[in-house]
Amino acid sequence: MMSSPIVVTYRLLCQEEDVERLARFITVEQTVEVPEALIARYPLVEEKVIGDVSGIESTCEGQHLITVTYDAALGGGDLSQLVNLIWGNISLLPRLQLVDLHLPPSLLARYRGPTSGIAGIREKLAVDQRPLLATALKPRGAPIEDLESMAEAFARGGGDLIKDDHNLIDSSFDQFCQRVLRCRDAVIRGREAVGGKTLYLANLCAPSEELAQRLGFLESEGVDGVLIAPYLIGLDRTRELALSTDLIFMSHPTASGGFVSRQGGGIDPGLLFGTLLRLAGIDVSVFCSYGGRFPFSVEDALSIAAGLRDPLGEIAPSWPSPGGGMELDRVGELIGTFGSDTLLLIGGALLCHKGGVEGGIAEFRSNVVDRLEQG
Amino acid sequence: MMSSPIVVTYRLLCQEEDVERLARFITVEQTVEVPEALIARYPLVEEKVIGDVSGIESTCEGQHLITVTYDAALGGGDLSQLVNLIWGNISLLPRLQLVDLHLPPSLLARYRGPTSGIAGIREKLAVDQRPLLATALKPRGAPIEDLESMAEAFARGGGDLIKDDHNLIDSSFDQFCQRVLRCRDAVIRGREAVGGKTLYLANLCAPSEELAQRLGFLESEGVDGVLIAPYLIGLDRTRELALSTDLIFMSHPTASGGFVSRQGGGIDPGLLFGTLLRLAGIDVSVFCSYGGRFPFSVEDALSIAAGLRDPLGEIAPSWPSPGGGMELDRVGELIGTFGSDTLLLIGGALLCHKGGVEGGIAEFRSNVVDRLEQG
Repeated sequence: MMSSPIVVTYRLLCQEEDVERLARFITVEQTVEVPEALIARYPLVEEKVIGDVSGIESTCEGQHLITVTYDAALGGGDLSQLVNLIWGNISLLPRLQLVDLHLPPSLLARYRGPTSGIAGIREKLAVDQRPLLATALKPRGAPIEDLESMAEAFARGGGDLIKDDHNLIDSSFDQFCQRVLRCRDAVIRGREAVGGKTLYLANLCAPSEELAQRLGFLESEGVDGVLIAPYLIGLDRTRELALSTDLIFMSHPTASGGFVSRQGGGIDPGLLFGTLLRLAGIDVSVFCSYGGRFPFSVEDALSIAAGLRDPLGEIAPSWPSPGGGMELDRVGELIGTFGSDTLLLIGGALLCHKGGVEGGIAEFRSNVVDRLEQG
Repeated sequence: MMSSPIVVTYRLLCQEEDVERLARFITVEQTVEVPEALIARYPLVEEKVIGDVSGIESTCEGQHLITVTYDAALGGGDLSQLVNLIWGNISLLPRLQLVDLHLPPSLLARYRGPTSGIAGIREKLAVDQRPLLATALKPRGAPIEDLESMAEAFARGGGDLIKDDHNLIDSSFDQFCQRVLRCRDAVIRGREAVGGKTLYLANLCAPSEELAQRLGFLESEGVDGVLIAPYLIGLDRTRELALSTDLIFMSHPTASGGFVSRQGGGIDPGLLFGTLLRLAGIDVSVFCSYGGRFPFSVEDALSIAAGLRDPLGEIAPSWPSPGGGMELDRVGELIGTFGSDTLLLIGGALLCHKGGVEGGIAEFRSNVVDRLEQG
């Protein structure tokens, strides 16, 4: 191959004697999907199109790490082509995981990545070093006055970022506009009262035909960004929408469960909620942390944080936002695990705090200070 | 609830003593995602927003069928909202499957469904009763002359539908246009030679920004339809694209592996490759059949066929298209399993037939005739 290739690592559970055959199966299935007899007619297809098995490393108990290199040109410059190449038909195989991905500079250069990312959001908030606090505006079905009060209280208390819950969906474009403007105004009232800079993100979940229209509305009305569900809306559609604007894009993991590796199949969480979302232009990635309502491990969570913050060509780092049942008394521990460049998402625990939303924020702040003083 | 609700059935593996708590967890997580203490403040949220657990049936060995009803209004009129409601955050739970879905007429009426479907494609081909034969144009990387020869031979042999392989992706819009026109012309030459009506479908896999443009090009150039990957592009985006045209939409299962139920999680194949795709407007659903390269059972395959053909409000039935390693000598058996309203997808076996593509089609025809005479 001429230029640097795409390098993908798969983990396969199988018998020792099957691993070479299955490694070849993967490379053929993902590129040409024809019988070997037909491939033999086309030496150039073998050379340029079919992936090369560049390594097989057998680990414990029938686990094999298979490294495949694909010509960079096959990845195109969009996430539909890329995912089709690295995790297309073979996503349907059991006992196979996509565990690592290295993209060459030529391919990374085709993605813009996040516009704000870690540095941009720190700048908007004028917060240099400490971890940030986010919450979710909910529940759906509550009177809009209650949502306004919550938004205003969060901003008044000095919270950093409030986003619509991913279930807070308005049934029409008009209702969306009205509701969002009221929530935006509530945040503005709260932040003006205390000279704060709290950011507000609206939920972009609507019929496909309306997504760009809603995004344009938010941009024109000075809303700070959107919450979007890439694995519901489409990963490459998310990239397209993010690329069309400078608004903050925060991703939500709803409906992603099918993709995530578990019980021997799926995509590594660090790629799914990290690398791939950064390519899509996500500034903040919400994921289910360890110790919450969903069964993710500390290793999963750290792998996601690394996927979001580790060097990736010229693409800026994004915020990990652990959520899914985080409690205020875990703030110190979570910062210890994830570090300062973390946007903690605390929803229910803040809404139900005995001192109200503002009391909850005060507790967050004091836990952060304690932690940072500990060092 | 006022009007007929959305009724969803989940299968959960858990201890008997946990099932009621987990059923409630599902209904709360999918709608409001707040602690019970907060729900208690809002009787209307409990009544209108949170799903009702309307049945729990415990089957063998810790398996529980949980039926939940959601207010139809929560489903909106698009597939992002619907999937977010029935399979959002809970997609991240292990040991939980989405196994059944009943949508009320009011909600079904918001979807157009397939435009051609079974009847429309029979009419285009002027074929009343027999099963149809499809193949895939491949491999990527072969000289375009070879793709043209294959397309022409398939049409000359009287094959019914030829579609680009899902890996046959052109690197630019211009290359796509040139390549597709040459393949279209080859099909036209073949069908004109024998007075046939073979349909040609081009692969719609491109950067999100280009999808509508490519679709418009195909429409203006008289290409018969597209191959699209809904679980790569986005289910609701697929619906939007299909709704914008009368071209035939054939779906491909690439990258869907994460969603499909296996090892205790995921979405039932009949919903994933049947019902949901019909709502998206898919006329022909390609899926991995039993007995091929992927581990799907006869029950999975029949469930998909039922999801595509069973009554679904006013929505037309679509073609099941079993593929993924089908051989010509299995044609009789496959028709016996799936019935006549089936579009058999035979790729590699046809391309490598000792009598060439035309010889392969002749074998298909004779197997079909044998089967129909038997049955």
